[in-house]
Amino acid sequence: MNKTVREVVLAHPITEPPVAADFAVIKRELPRQLPAGALHVRPLVLGLDPYIGQRIRGRHMGEPAPAPGESLPGEVVASVLSSSDEAFSVGDYVVGHTGWADEAVVRAAAMRKVDPAQGLAEHLGILGIPGLTAWAAMTQLASIGAGDIVTIDAAAGAVGGTAGQLAKLAGATVIGIVGGPDKARIVTDQYRLDAAVDYHKPGWQGELPGGIAVHLENVGQRVLDVVLPRLRPYGQIVLCGLAQHYADGSAALLPVGPIIGKRAVVRGLIVYDFLPRLGEWTSYAAPLIREGRLVEVRDCANGLGEAPAQMERVARGLTRGRAVVDLRGS
Amino acid sequence: MNKTVREVVLAHPITEPPVAADFAVIKRELPRQLPAGALHVRPLVLGLDPYIGQRIRGRHMGEPAPAPGESLPGEVVASVLSSSDEAFSVGDYVVGHTGWADEAVVRAAAMRKVDPAQGLAEHLGILGIPGLTAWAAMTQLASIGAGDIVTIDAAAGAVGGTAGQLAKLAGATVIGIVGGPDKARIVTDQYRLDAAVDYHKPGWQGELPGGIAVHLENVGQRVLDVVLPRLRPYGQIVLCGLAQHYADGSAALLPVGPIIGKRAVVRGLIVYDFLPRLGEWTSYAAPLIREGRLVEVRDCANGLGEAPAQMERVARGLTRGRAVVDLRGS
Repeated sequence: MNKTVREVVLAHPITEPPVAADFAVIKRELPRQLPAGALHVRPLVLGLDPYIGQRIRGRHMGEPAPAPGESLPGEVVASVLSSSDEAFSVGDYVVGHTGWADEAVVRAAAMRKVDPAQGLAEHLGILGIPGLTAWAAMTQLASIGAGDIVTIDAAAGAVGGTAGQLAKLAGATVIGIVGGPDKARIVTDQYRLDAAVDYHKPGWQGELPGGIAVHLENVGQRVLDVVLPRLRPYGQIVLCGLAQHYADGSAALLPVGPIIGKRAVVRGLIVYDFLPRLGEWTSYAAPLIREGRLVEVRDCANGLGEAPAQMERVARGLTRGRAVVDLRGS
Repeated sequence: MNKTVREVVLAHPITEPPVAADFAVIKRELPRQLPAGALHVRPLVLGLDPYIGQRIRGRHMGEPAPAPGESLPGEVVASVLSSSDEAFSVGDYVVGHTGWADEAVVRAAAMRKVDPAQGLAEHLGILGIPGLTAWAAMTQLASIGAGDIVTIDAAAGAVGGTAGQLAKLAGATVIGIVGGPDKARIVTDQYRLDAAVDYHKPGWQGELPGGIAVHLENVGQRVLDVVLPRLRPYGQIVLCGLAQHYADGSAALLPVGPIIGKRAVVRGLIVYDFLPRLGEWTSYAAPLIREGRLVEVRDCANGLGEAPAQMERVARGLTRGRAVVDLRGS
C-alpha cells in the first residue's frame, strides 16, 4: 500500500461541546503491509451521534477522550479494499469504527459485515444501532397493545423516529415530543405519527393527553416530569438515554411516589445488550423500508471536510433525523 | 340490641404523628334494629399500620382525616353476632374496618369472610394485606431465581418479614435491612434470613454485597441510594411504600442514569390491585404457616384501652413485626 490518506482528528483537547474549529485534517501513512487479521477499508458514510460530542471530551461512560491526532469514534459503513482475515473478502461491506478518514486499516474482528442490498447509510441508522435501540425499546422492553397511547421523546431523531413508527405498526396512537416546528413537521409528515408536541411552545404540557401507556425517554428530566403524571395505571417508561443531561452532567431523577401510585414499570435500556440480535431486526426492518412502511430521515453532509461542521450541528441539536456525512464525494 | 359499647376515637384533630393522648374512649349506642345488609360484629383483633398515623391526620392518598368522634381506620378480625345479609351467618369470622370498638354495626358488603382455621390475627398480617403485599412483590412483580441475592428493606416488618421468607423459599440469599439490633435479631433468628444489616450502624453500607438481583423497598431514599449502585445488571426494584417519607412529606427520587446503566427494572406496587387474589395467597400460605415454614412475628397489646399507646408505638417505629391489639381481653 504505502499510501497517504486524510483523517479528521481533534486539533486540541476540548472541554466544551465540539465546534468545527476544534478539528483538523491531517495526513496519515497507511502501513506498507496489512497486518494479520486486518482490513484495508474505504469509509463511505460516517454516522455522527450526540454521544460523540461527549466522548471526545471524556464525558461518555468513563472512556478517555481521544488525544489530538488520534482517530475519532463514530460508526462508518466501509467497503473492503483488501483483507488479511479469512472471514472478509474484497468487495464486502462492513460497519465499525475506522476513524473519520479517506481510507483506514482496521482490526477485522471489530467490524461487522452488512448487506448492501439493504442499504448503506441505513446501516448507521435505522438498520444499525439507533434502529436496534428503537426496536429493543418498543418490542422487547415495552409491551404495546393496539389503541395504546405512546409518547416518544426526541421523536424526530434517529431512535425516536423509528420507535414512533414501530409503535404505529403495533397499532398505537403515537405522539412525538420534539423541540421546534421543523422537527414537529418531520414527526407528522415524514414519520407519520399521529401528533407532534413542541416543547418550545408555552403550554405544550397541556397538549399531552392523559392515559399514556408507554413512554420512551432518551432526553431527560424536562419531558419525564410532564409525562409521569399523565401515565396510565401500569404505564411503562423505557429509559434509553439522557441527552439533556450529557451536556451539563446533571442528574435526571424519577419521583418514587408517582411510580408506586401509577404502578408504573420503568426499564433501563443499554442497546449493546441487543447487538447479537441485530440481524433479527434488520431482516424484519429491511422489507418494511423497501415498501416505504418504515422511513428514515437523514441529515447528510457531503465530503470528509464537512464532518467537523456536521459534528458541531449535531452537538448543537441542529440536525434533523439521522446525521451522517457522505464521504464518497470528498 | 340497644346496647352501649366503647370506641376509641380521636380526641382532637392532629397534625403530627399520633401519640396516646390524642385518643379518647367514648360510649356509643348501637342501633336498636340492624339495618338491611348489615352485620353486628364483635372485633377480636385490631391491626395497626404506619399508614393509619398518616391517614388520621389527612396525609394518606388524599383521604380526609376522620373528625374527632368518628370511627378510626384499621382492619379488624371480628366474629358475627347477628346478620341481616344472607351472605353472612352468626358465627362467621370477617375482616374489615369496624372502628376501634368493643362491638360495631358495619355494612356487610365492606367485610370479607375469613377462615378461622387458618388463624385469627394472621388475617390482619401474614394472611392479610401485608402478606398479600409481600406475595405480590416477590412472586408477581419480581422474578427471583435460586441463588439470587435479594435485599429487603424494613425486613422485620409485616411486609418485609414475609417477603424475605418468600424469597428464601424461592432459593435466594436474602439480606434484611433494618434499624436497630433487636430488629436485626428478628430477621436472622425468627424469619431466618441469611443476614441482617442495621442502618443505624456506621458503615452499614459496606455490609451490603454487590450483585443484588431484587430489592424490595417500602421505606424510602436512605436505603434506595445505597442499593441502586449495588444492583446487578438487569436487577429489579419493587417499590411498595415510602414510610420514611410519609412522616415528613418529602419526595423519594430515583436517579435515571444508574437505572439505564444497570438496565434496571423498577416496578410500583399497589396491593389493592391484588385483593381479588387474596384467596390464592392464603391457601398457599396457610399450610406453610402450619408447618412453621412461614412465620409471623407479632407485637401484641392487650385490650381496647391499649390501642392508643400501641398506635403511638407504631407511629414511632417502636413495634416489632406485625402490630396488633388483642381486644378479647379488654
